[in-house]
Amino acid sequence: MPAAEISRVLQLARKMNPQRPRPLLRGKRVLLLFYEASTRTRASFEVAAKSLGATTTLVLSSGSSIEKGESLLDTAYTLRAIGADVIVVRHPNAGAPHLMAKHLDIPVINAGDGMHEHPTQALLDAYTMLRHKKKLGELQVAIIGDVYHSRVARSAIHLLSKFGAKVVLCGPPELLPDLATTLAPGLRISRSCEEAVRGADVVFVLRVQRERLAGLKLNLQDYISRYQVTMPRLRLAKSDALLMHPGPIIRGLELTWEVADCPQSVIVEEVKNGVPVRMAVLARAFGG
Amino acid sequence: MPAAEISRVLQLARKMNPQRPRPLLRGKRVLLLFYEASTRTRASFEVAAKSLGATTTLVLSSGSSIEKGESLLDTAYTLRAIGADVIVVRHPNAGAPHLMAKHLDIPVINAGDGMHEHPTQALLDAYTMLRHKKKLGELQVAIIGDVYHSRVARSAIHLLSKFGAKVVLCGPPELLPDLATTLAPGLRISRSCEEAVRGADVVFVLRVQRERLAGLKLNLQDYISRYQVTMPRLRLAKSDALLMHPGPIIRGLELTWEVADCPQSVIVEEVKNGVPVRMAVLARAFGG
Amino acid sequence: MPAAEISRVLQLARKMNPQRPRPLLRGKRVLLLFYEASTRTRASFEVAAKSLGATTTLVLSSGSSIEKGESLLDTAYTLRAIGADVIVVRHPNAGAPHLMAKHLDIPVINAGDGMHEHPTQALLDAYTMLRHKKKLGELQVAIIGDVYHSRVARSAIHLLSKFGAKVVLCGPPELLPDLATTLAPGLRISRSCEEAVRGADVVFVLRVQRERLAGLKLNLQDYISRYQVTMPRLRLAKSDALLMHPGPIIRGLELTWEVADCPQSVIVEEVKNGVPVRMAVLARAFGG
Repeated sequence: MPAAEISRVLQLARKMNPQRPRPLLRGKRVLLLFYEASTRTRASFEVAAKSLGATTTLVLSSGSSIEKGESLLDTAYTLRAIGADVIVVRHPNAGAPHLMAKHLDIPVINAGDGMHEHPTQALLDAYTMLRHKKKLGELQVAIIGDVYHSRVARSAIHLLSKFGAKVVLCGPPELLPDLATTLAPGLRISRSCEEAVRGADVVFVLRVQRERLAGLKLNLQDYISRYQVTMPRLRLAKSDALLMHPGPIIRGLELTWEVADCPQSVIVEEVKNGVPVRMAVLARAFGG
Repeated sequence: MPAAEISRVLQLARKMNPQRPRPLLRGKRVLLLFYEASTRTRASFEVAAKSLGATTTLVLSSGSSIEKGESLLDTAYTLRAIGADVIVVRHPNAGAPHLMAKHLDIPVINAGDGMHEHPTQALLDAYTMLRHKKKLGELQVAIIGDVYHSRVARSAIHLLSKFGAKVVLCGPPELLPDLATTLAPGLRISRSCEEAVRGADVVFVLRVQRERLAGLKLNLQDYISRYQVTMPRLRLAKSDALLMHPGPIIRGLELTWEVADCPQSVIVEEVKNGVPVRMAVLARAFGG
Repeated sequence: MPAAEISRVLQLARKMNPQRPRPLLRGKRVLLLFYEASTRTRASFEVAAKSLGATTTLVLSSGSSIEKGESLLDTAYTLRAIGADVIVVRHPNAGAPHLMAKHLDIPVINAGDGMHEHPTQALLDAYTMLRHKKKLGELQVAIIGDVYHSRVARSAIHLLSKFGAKVVLCGPPELLPDLATTLAPGLRISRSCEEAVRGADVVFVLRVQRERLAGLKLNLQDYISRYQVTMPRLRLAKSDALLMHPGPIIRGLELTWEVADCPQSVIVEEVKNGVPVRMAVLARAFGG
C-alpha cells in the first residue's frame, strides 16, 4: 500500500464513528474467513462491518469444507458464489490473501497471513501514534521482541519506513536475525533493550509467541531478564513516549504488569482504534 | 441481587414479547463470551438481544486469543475496546463475571460461572413458577440430584430462600454434602426421594453432570434406583405440582421418559421463558 | 417432495434475487443446527435467510448441550422454545430431520442427513440444469463416482427420475453396488466411465469422500485411472454437456484441474444458484 493510500485510509478513519453507524455498506455481505484463532481482529472486523450496515458471515476452517480437502482458491470461488461482496481472510500461509485477491473480482482484505503481513494492525497502530504525535516521519520507534515470527512487526516496519520514521529493532538473534535489517531501508538492530528504548517516542512491544517457539533454543528466563519491558527500561524513553503492544499481551513475559497498565500504555486504545480503521479499510474497498 | 430487584426483573419480563421486538437496545452491541459449551443459554441470550434490536458478537474460548495466554481481564478490556456495550459471560471459574464487572464500565451479565451461580436460570425458573403459582414464599420446593456440582441449584436456592420458599434438597452424600444446608437459611436435606417429594409444589430435578463425576465413587445404577424421579415418586407431590429441570435432560438417568413428558412437566416452558427473562435482564442492564 | 412441488420451488427460485432482498421472512428466526462440518450449505442458507429479512442463529454440535447427552428431539424442543420459527438441520443420521419435523409444529428443512438425502442440493442442481437445458425429462445424466456414500447422488437420482430423465450411474462396485439400480425406476449402472459419459447432456461428478472410505479396499490410483473425469472422457459427452459437481471438489482426484475449469463446468454456478433456491425453500416453508 503506497503512503498516499495509507494517509487516505487514516484520514477516512478519523471520520468513522462506531457509535454513529453509517450505512455505507448497506446490503453488502462481508465474509470473514479465518483459518487461525483470533478474537480481536475477527470481532473488530465484525463490529466495523456491522457499523457500516453490512451483514457478516463467519467461516472458520474447522467445521467447514476446508477440512474436506478443498483448495484455497476453490473455497474463495465458493464464498464469492454464495454472495460475498468482500472477503476478510486470515491464513497461516504467507500470500494466501494475495492469491485470493488475484483470482476474485471482489476485494480481499488481509487479516493476517502467516509470518508475512498484518496490514490493518499496522494501520491502526499508525492511527494510534497519530492521535498522540504529529508526524510519523519524526518518530523514533523501538520494536522489542519476537520480530522474526511477527507479521505485526513486519507490517509496522514497512508502514513506518514509508513515512521516514527511525525504527530500531531489538531482540535476541533467535527472534531477530541480522538479516532483518533488509526488511526496509534505514533499519537498525540493537541487542540491548536499554539502548533501543533510549530516547524513543514509541516503545512497541511484541508478544512472545510461545506457539511458534517450538524447536528454538530460547530460555524464557534469559529473555525476560534481557528484553522484558520494565518500568526502569521504559523510563529511558522520552517522557511522553507511547507504550504499544498489538495484543494479546502476556503480562510477566514480554512486559511487566506495571508497564501494561502505566499511563503511557495505549494498548487498549490500539484495540479501540481498530474499529474505525477497519471501517475505513472496508469503505475504501468499495471505493469509499 | 436483592429481592426487590428480582421482582422488578420478573415484572419487566412479563411485558417482554419476543414475537413483538422492542428496540430498547437498538444500536447496542451485546458481546457473548463463552468459555464453556452452551446451546440454550447462548442461543437464548442471542435471541433476547436481537429481539431488543441489539447486534450480537459471539466469542468462544477456542478459536480466540484466549488460547494464546491472555488474562481474563485483558480479554475483557479488549472486548470493551472493540465496542461491547454489555458482555454476557460464561466461565468455568467461579467469580469470573464478578471480576470482569468490577473492572469494566459496562454491564457484565453472568451466564454461569463454574459451580458457583447461574442467575438468569434462577430468574427464568422463578418466572416459570409464578406463571403457575401465586407466591414463591408459599411454595415447597424439592430439589433432587447433583446439588454439589450445580450452579443452577445454588442460584435457585438463593433466590427461593430470599422469598421464603421452603426448600428441601435431596441426593446422595457424594452429590449433596451435609454442608449444603449452610447455603441459605431454613434449608433441609433429605436422603429419601420419596420424603423430599411428598407434598411438594415444585419438583426440581437436576441433571447428572457426568462430565463432573470423574473421581467420585458414585454408582449410576444405585443413583437411579434411589433418586431417579419416576411417576410413582412424582405422584407423592401435590397433584398440581410442577416438574422442572434446567436442561439438558438425560432421559432414563435423573428422570424417566414418562416424567419428562408428563402433563406437569414445564421443562420446555422453562426454556421458552428464558427469552423474555433475558430480555428483561438486558433491558435492566441499560436502566430499562 | 412431489414433482409439482419441486416445480413450484424452482419457479419461485427464479424470482428470488439475493441482490434485492425481499422481507418475506422479516422478524422470523432461522435456526441453523449443524451436527456436521459444512461451509457452503450453512453459509448459503445463512445468506438466503438474511436476504429474506430473517435473523439467523447458528448451533454447532460441538460447543453445545448436545455434547452433554441431550437427545435430538429434546434439542429440537429446546430450539423451538427459544424461538426458532424454522430449523435447518444437518445430521449424520439418516432420518434425523424427518424425526424432528414429525414432532415439531414448525418447518424443519433437511440440509443433509447421513448418507440419506440432501434435497436442497438436488433442487439447486435441477435449477442449474434448467438454466441451460429445456426440460429435465429430456436429459441424459451420467453420475460418476462414489454413489454409495453420497446423499447428493441419492437426492439427485430421486429428483431426476421423477421428471423422467435418463440416469446412468458409474463407479466401481465398492462405491456403487448393483443394488443401486433399485433407488429409482429406469436407473442403469455402468462400470465404464467412457460408456456412461457418451452422449450425456450432464456429467455429474461426485466427490471421493475420503473420510467415509475407511475400511474399503479401494485403490485411489486405480480409481483415478478408471473413473477420474478427464477432458478426453468429457469430450465423449454431447458438445454442450454440462459438467457438474456438488463440491467441495478435490482436483486431481475425481476430476482433473482442466475439467474443473473447462467452459462446460458449472460448478461455481451451482453454488451461486444455491442461494435463490434456498430462499425459495425457506419462503415455501412459510407458505410463500
